[in-house]
Amino acid sequence: MTINENADVNPEFVKGLEDVIASTTSIGYIDGQEGKLVYRGYDIFDLAKYSSFEETVYLLLYGKLPNQVELEAFKEKLVSYRPVMNEVMDRLAQFPCPCHPMSILRSGISLMECINESCRGSGNIEGEIEEGIKLIAQIPTLTAGIARILNNEPLVQPDPELDHAANFLYMLKGKRAHPMAERIMDISLILHADHGMNASTFASLVVAATLSDIYSSITTGISALKGPLHGGANEMVIQMLLNLNSVKEAEEYMDEVIANNKKIIGFGHRVYSTIDPRAKILQRYAEELCNITGNQQLYSIARTIETRGIEAYGKKGVYPNVDFYSGLIYHSMGIPGNMFTPIFAVSRTAGWVARIIEYLEDNRIFRPRALYVGLKGLSYVPIDKRE
Amino acid sequence: MTINENADVNPEFVKGLEDVIASTTSIGYIDGQEGKLVYRGYDIFDLAKYSSFEETVYLLLYGKLPNQVELEAFKEKLVSYRPVMNEVMDRLAQFPCPCHPMSILRSGISLMECINESCRGSGNIEGEIEEGIKLIAQIPTLTAGIARILNNEPLVQPDPELDHAANFLYMLKGKRAHPMAERIMDISLILHADHGMNASTFASLVVAATLSDIYSSITTGISALKGPLHGGANEMVIQMLLNLNSVKEAEEYMDEVIANNKKIIGFGHRVYSTIDPRAKILQRYAEELCNITGNQQLYSIARTIETRGIEAYGKKGVYPNVDFYSGLIYHSMGIPGNMFTPIFAVSRTAGWVARIIEYLEDNRIFRPRALYVGLKGLSYVPIDKRE
Repeated sequence: MTINENADVNPEFVKGLEDVIASTTSIGYIDGQEGKLVYRGYDIFDLAKYSSFEETVYLLLYGKLPNQVELEAFKEKLVSYRPVMNEVMDRLAQFPCPCHPMSILRSGISLMECINESCRGSGNIEGEIEEGIKLIAQIPTLTAGIARILNNEPLVQPDPELDHAANFLYMLKGKRAHPMAERIMDISLILHADHGMNASTFASLVVAATLSDIYSSITTGISALKGPLHGGANEMVIQMLLNLNSVKEAEEYMDEVIANNKKIIGFGHRVYSTIDPRAKILQRYAEELCNITGNQQLYSIARTIETRGIEAYGKKGVYPNVDFYSGLIYHSMGIPGNMFTPIFAVSRTAGWVARIIEYLEDNRIFRPRALYVGLKGLSYVPIDKRE
Repeated sequence: MTINENADVNPEFVKGLEDVIASTTSIGYIDGQEGKLVYRGYDIFDLAKYSSFEETVYLLLYGKLPNQVELEAFKEKLVSYRPVMNEVMDRLAQFPCPCHPMSILRSGISLMECINESCRGSGNIEGEIEEGIKLIAQIPTLTAGIARILNNEPLVQPDPELDHAANFLYMLKGKRAHPMAERIMDISLILHADHGMNASTFASLVVAATLSDIYSSITTGISALKGPLHGGANEMVIQMLLNLNSVKEAEEYMDEVIANNKKIIGFGHRVYSTIDPRAKILQRYAEELCNITGNQQLYSIARTIETRGIEAYGKKGVYPNVDFYSGLIYHSMGIPGNMFTPIFAVSRTAGWVARIIEYLEDNRIFRPRALYVGLKGLSYVPIDKRE
């Protein structure tokens, strides 16, 4: 095909490629009208209820639920890949000024390609799957390490006896979390693992399709997830909640928001016109967790905002999204707000890897057009003749 | 809008978003039929002949050729931004195993956000332009530093007396290059600065549109450019040429390629059905440079392949692309092959920054659809009941 970006056609085009199909997939889909999220044919409600993050990752990567032998082997492999080389952590420590953990995480993943024993992706699909599994296993270690560096605490090595979510919390906090917190982290990781053709997934596919390596693609996913229009939003919900000191203040706050038709932080999502199924699941767990951790008042404030928000905006299709309750949950686990988006990345890496591998199996480089609307046919003017 | 990725429509879609319009632009366009490349209304032939890289960057960023005062101020600003902090270079030195310089460059740009004095993008467009100009000024320093680290040579600090291209060659080689080499590097940087909605530019826009910072976007551009289907191809041309020891061997090689209808490395481009204008310009300079540097035989080998290739494949619209001669030029300058793609990035950063800033002025997050073609409505089966 020959591209003429100066073609005198004036085609209709939709900003942001909204509703444009970029690829086919068998990995998962969203039904925004019904409020459904499906991984490989399984409803997210079932996976949150019955599955584990490790099993869900297997499902995303291989397209089926593993049997006992397959799951054990896969879990063992993840455990064996967990440690992150000191050469990476050393390079991330002691920055001259405090930096957002997403920036450090992006740098850490990029450095990992240079330092991992294999030195780089192997260039074939089997090799890329293996490097992808390595990244899924290592990103919790890297993320927990960054949290501890920023908090001036010593690094905690992974505990091979613990499952993925429990080990992640252990490395973050330096001690075992409450069993309920471990289970809720597991569920939260399941819920965030994949979500259709979102911006970070799409960006990572655009990079993968040049046949660049998987570290480049995941670095890119993190780069996109960092944006406040994407993963970067979850940090703002808890800031809003913590600014309110009582249910009464929350009511007054909502009076003002609704009277002025303002946006509610943590409400609304481009793909859902009903409640985000992930928010529905997390709301119930947020309540349980807040009861255990003594954050009942914060939970009541959140519920006030949710109830008032749905009353006012639900008829317009604006409902709480996943960020609304995930922040409350992480905060109740004692995790600082700037780590919420990195935790999102810990989970979403699974979806990125699964979709990259799927795309590479029938690859085509992404090369859309930009429609030129600028000046044409200008003659170069020597500098002394310019105004 | 509500997305239903499970909609029972079966829309036509084009893999790789081929010919799909992703945005409008006033920065530049390609006419693939005519073999034209235009920046801001100016033909690339004029810019290569009369302009400098600094002036071209100004043009791309601000949409007009600068007057004398504007150009001097812009050049001074670039010079002032050139040094890269030791904290970045130290972290890139001494990797445990040799790594592709594109991987190190990707890590270096990412680390720069964490270490640059401002610590991160400012979040507003003026701030992002300033950080973008900083990156355009610093990426030659970073790239030359990586080349010298990989070659176990001491780093060379930028020389404020030298223009952008001359200083880049100076930092790479540790001494001033031949004036002809400096001018040809300048031209090569002009030619590679922008090229429509290519994969790396597109990937960097997808990231920028989440309102992530410009370091994330440029890290992403490098991640995509690294792929062998994109910028990673230029390294392969010189490998092919160096494997041929005479014009006779080149003729035999081409006999075999043509007889078997094989692809010629450095030939063909998705957007051109005629000769790539950049290849046309570089071919003439390659000849001049090879004469000076004693690489006449290598030039003759390249010409043999070009002539035979066009005879055989030109009627199918397959012509030499920019990679065909850029590698020969860089090789004649004594630059190792693994640095060719990083040099591409040194130039293309200008186009990435210009298009990111333009897109942010009327931003919309990229959120296309994936069409779900997988299984549906599966029931979760307990693990002991699975096969």
